[in-house]
Amino acid sequence: MADGPTINTIAERAGVSIASVSRVLNGLPTRQETERKVLKAAEELGYVRNAVARSLKSRRTDQVAFAMADVGNPAYLAMLRQIQPVLKAAGYRLVLHSTDAVAADEIDVLHSLGERYVDGLIMSPLRVTDAHLEMLAAARAPVVIIGSVPEGTPVDNVRADSRTGVRLAVDHLYALGRRRIAMVNGPLDTVPGAARGAAYREALEDLGLPYDDDLVQIGDFYRAEGARAVAELLARVPDVDALMCANDLIALGALDVLRAAGRRVPDDVAVVGMDDTDLAAASWPSLTSVSLGSAERGKVAAELLLDRLRGGDREPRVVTVAPRLAVRASTAGPAYEPADRKEGGA
Amino acid sequence: MADGPTINTIAERAGVSIASVSRVLNGLPTRQETERKVLKAAEELGYVRNAVARSLKSRRTDQVAFAMADVGNPAYLAMLRQIQPVLKAAGYRLVLHSTDAVAADEIDVLHSLGERYVDGLIMSPLRVTDAHLEMLAAARAPVVIIGSVPEGTPVDNVRADSRTGVRLAVDHLYALGRRRIAMVNGPLDTVPGAARGAAYREALEDLGLPYDDDLVQIGDFYRAEGARAVAELLARVPDVDALMCANDLIALGALDVLRAAGRRVPDDVAVVGMDDTDLAAASWPSLTSVSLGSAERGKVAAELLLDRLRGGDREPRVVTVAPRLAVRASTAGPAYEPADRKEGGA
Repeated sequence: MADGPTINTIAERAGVSIASVSRVLNGLPTRQETERKVLKAAEELGYVRNAVARSLKSRRTDQVAFAMADVGNPAYLAMLRQIQPVLKAAGYRLVLHSTDAVAADEIDVLHSLGERYVDGLIMSPLRVTDAHLEMLAAARAPVVIIGSVPEGTPVDNVRADSRTGVRLAVDHLYALGRRRIAMVNGPLDTVPGAARGAAYREALEDLGLPYDDDLVQIGDFYRAEGARAVAELLARVPDVDALMCANDLIALGALDVLRAAGRRVPDDVAVVGMDDTDLAAASWPSLTSVSLGSAERGKVAAELLLDRLRGGDREPRVVTVAPRLAVRASTAGPAYEPADRKEGGA
Repeated sequence: MADGPTINTIAERAGVSIASVSRVLNGLPTRQETERKVLKAAEELGYVRNAVARSLKSRRTDQVAFAMADVGNPAYLAMLRQIQPVLKAAGYRLVLHSTDAVAADEIDVLHSLGERYVDGLIMSPLRVTDAHLEMLAAARAPVVIIGSVPEGTPVDNVRADSRTGVRLAVDHLYALGRRRIAMVNGPLDTVPGAARGAAYREALEDLGLPYDDDLVQIGDFYRAEGARAVAELLARVPDVDALMCANDLIALGALDVLRAAGRRVPDDVAVVGMDDTDLAAASWPSLTSVSLGSAERGKVAAELLLDRLRGGDREPRVVTVAPRLAVRASTAGPAYEPADRKEGGA
């Protein structure tokens, strides 16, 4: 919770790990000295221990949680649409958390597993911090991560391959004759931002294109932020002829700005998105986009979690879903004029 | 849950009300004969009682639930963006349910309040059935309904005024000279579908326009369904000159179909949506839409719930948020050609 004491602030005050605080507050066996420190810090900070915690150990709730980074991003909705029926068919009610990719909120969700209000959790964090890894190692219920966690993290892990995905897109733009291919990315301290940025650089190198800092613009993974980033980019590099956008929302923001600036898509500037959400096919012009298999990742995550909930005691599994390029009008389609004015095409 | 026994099926088998089943299963005082019937039916149907239920009575969880009809509809996201910070500031974690407006799932969420995994609930049902009303009367935690429930329902209730909203839109279209104004609606057995359909009829009558069944098309509140409905409508009534759509998703589906059919918006057909979601301003052409105050309704609902959670013992309150028309290019804006081909306008 933002304004009250959290296990973060208690851990800081007590000088112990977050996982230790979580264990103590959930009533699990802990070294006496650690317990003393945590309870003292909790008391000083005014933390009111959840009375439910102790009573719930090892009981079923028939609920499972899915913690999404951004409930407004259709990529997560595509996951949700696969996760919900798989769990429902197995008798589980799904509860959702929208964390806005705020690490503290994600940690809080992981901590709350000790309160046993759900039997398991699927989470899609954008950033995987040390606190995440600590909490994952100490999780009191099965967790499946959609995204990439380091080797050895003791949870099931369903990954996209955005590196290959970016490669598919850049190769496609190159094959269309584009040579001033810019990258519009999200923050580089996120897992997808870092992976996609590196992949863009690699792809250019392999094609023998020079890497140019001016062609890289960092914003955030939302439409309005994407639009702002593209406006800046166009002001700095007016001769850009293709935009590799790190997700579909950014790409839609790009289309807004290009339209307002009178740049034709794809004639003047080709645009590729990423995630191949429902919005890509429905936008106008329709958007070429790299599918990272959101729906498939959701389905696999739900199945892995169910397997755990049914008692599957096995080594953590890593499943990687392969990307695919969906080519549409924003790069290679027919010109994007409406039917009634094709004759007037510029 | 869909495939196991539910309180619905137990109530049916036992020949008692759903609320009675909920009371028995949550361990609340009930007539002995009723209890006997319910437990017998539950046993016969193989219902495994939630062991958590009894242990949780009157304990705080610091969680609040928001049950949305369609997590893919930005109108609910606008509510969510207001609800989340209000509750978070008061120390509550928010959990979400996406019910797809399935009554059984909504009933299940209301029932689960007895398990006390949350301290309160905000719900936006599309249909309010007798089972909803029974469960609301017996709810084990404070509930706020966003939508309309009958007078006397013992819960706080935050309403939109879609009747006045439709009136604003139809008057606007009339003022622009449109006389063949069609209505593209969602199902008439939903609260918004019924209200918006009736309001359309009233608005036409007040303007002295004839009501024509051919001008009314019923689909559902999703983009693809809206597109299908508009395609049917255009085939049947080619001379339609304005579309009053019952939400923004339907209106976006209408734009897709009109574009594919070569009909100019707004020159040939003006389009109005409803809910004034983020998608309305971002679509192309930008969409005139009736704001029903989604954000404001979310905020008011969260505040009413907080008031209850803080012990506010008062008569149920009904708050109605006034509508507002946001006029954009799809009815009255500049022509919708991109800047670089304005000269070639057909």
